[in-house]
Amino acid sequence: MTMSTEAASPATPPGAATPSRKTRSDGDRTRRAILEAATRLATLEGLDRLSIGELAAQIGMSKSGLYAHFGSKEELQLATIDAAEAIFDEVVVAPAATAKPGIPAVLALSDAFLGHLEARVFPGGCFFACASAEVQARPGALKDRISEFDARWKARFVDQLRYAQQRGDISASEDIEQLWFELDAYLLYAHAAFAFRADSEVLARAGSAVRHRLGVPT
Amino acid sequence: MTMSTEAASPATPPGAATPSRKTRSDGDRTRRAILEAATRLATLEGLDRLSIGELAAQIGMSKSGLYAHFGSKEELQLATIDAAEAIFDEVVVAPAATAKPGIPAVLALSDAFLGHLEARVFPGGCFFACASAEVQARPGALKDRISEFDARWKARFVDQLRYAQQRGDISASEDIEQLWFELDAYLLYAHAAFAFRADSEVLARAGSAVRHRLGVPT
Repeated sequence: MTMSTEAASPATPPGAATPSRKTRSDGDRTRRAILEAATRLATLEGLDRLSIGELAAQIGMSKSGLYAHFGSKEELQLATIDAAEAIFDEVVVAPAATAKPGIPAVLALSDAFLGHLEARVFPGGCFFACASAEVQARPGALKDRISEFDARWKARFVDQLRYAQQRGDISASEDIEQLWFELDAYLLYAHAAFAFRADSEVLARAGSAVRHRLGVPT
Repeated sequence: MTMSTEAASPATPPGAATPSRKTRSDGDRTRRAILEAATRLATLEGLDRLSIGELAAQIGMSKSGLYAHFGSKEELQLATIDAAEAIFDEVVVAPAATAKPGIPAVLALSDAFLGHLEARVFPGGCFFACASAEVQARPGALKDRISEFDARWKARFVDQLRYAQQRGDISASEDIEQLWFELDAYLLYAHAAFAFRADSEVLARAGSAVRHRLGVPT
């Protein structure tokens, strides 16, 4: 996992100059403030609209001050995705990690995902669904970075679904890739419908769909 | 249904000046060419990027020539959505309309939708899924126009699902709104995954998911 927002205490390479503690932590705080604003802006306006100028205006910094933190627009966009994943891990992945493995873990991940939509952690819904839709037709570093997130998200589910199947909690005849397709479809649709209509009924429907598909009482 | 692209032969209001046939059909051809380019561009770059300038450059017209057809960017965007719905109706809705009512009609609509993704009728996938994602956080005329499309699309399914339920082809205990949620989720997910990864396996998975959910053999 790459988390630029957690770069506060990197291992110092041998021979590297050590910045003063004050400078480093001030710089980190500023960087974090910039990236938090950027993750929110990206789900409303798009990663592509994440101009250093617009962001500077939003957080009341000079453009040159922002350039000191991010050398290019793409660097800023990639750091924003890293920051969004760190937030996603904190509010969705980590709380679900305490659930028992197998079906309970799948339900916990799904519910935490739906909960982060309802709480509007990102104002436009799922940061990664927004970003995927935006970069789908643009091969490059951003799309690759989103694909890495997708692979990690999928693995979290598929590993638990396979474990549940080995335990006999999911029928041996079930195609786990197909099951994953359907479960993730409910979650993406909940994002899209909630972001468009702000109707929390769709979140409940997604939770029911996941449970129904897994044969768990709703 | 509003189809600006079919405005070739409107009923002439009493007392209105009749333009010469040549002028009118030349103007219509140009308008159609502009809007076809616009529907394609919109799924790759976004409705918001649909600037009169960029479009003029793409189809080799002057900006002032385009302004003669569309007075503002929003007019151009709305006309583009109308044109996209006309194309969608032609390639998805109309072919499915020959199916028998009920479950066969639902399968025909789903398959025609998946087929139009595979055929890349719009290069970015489903025009309306792209447009929804883009305008979700921007209330206004464009979002209202997309909502109208959504309502028509949903009604096509829900009407057939209710008919199938009345016939006894769908269990009386089934919540049709929930069923619609799940079916449309598979279709949206197919769009998103195919647009992102260009892997037609996801189209087959969506077709299987629809059939499995309706209890129809795949």
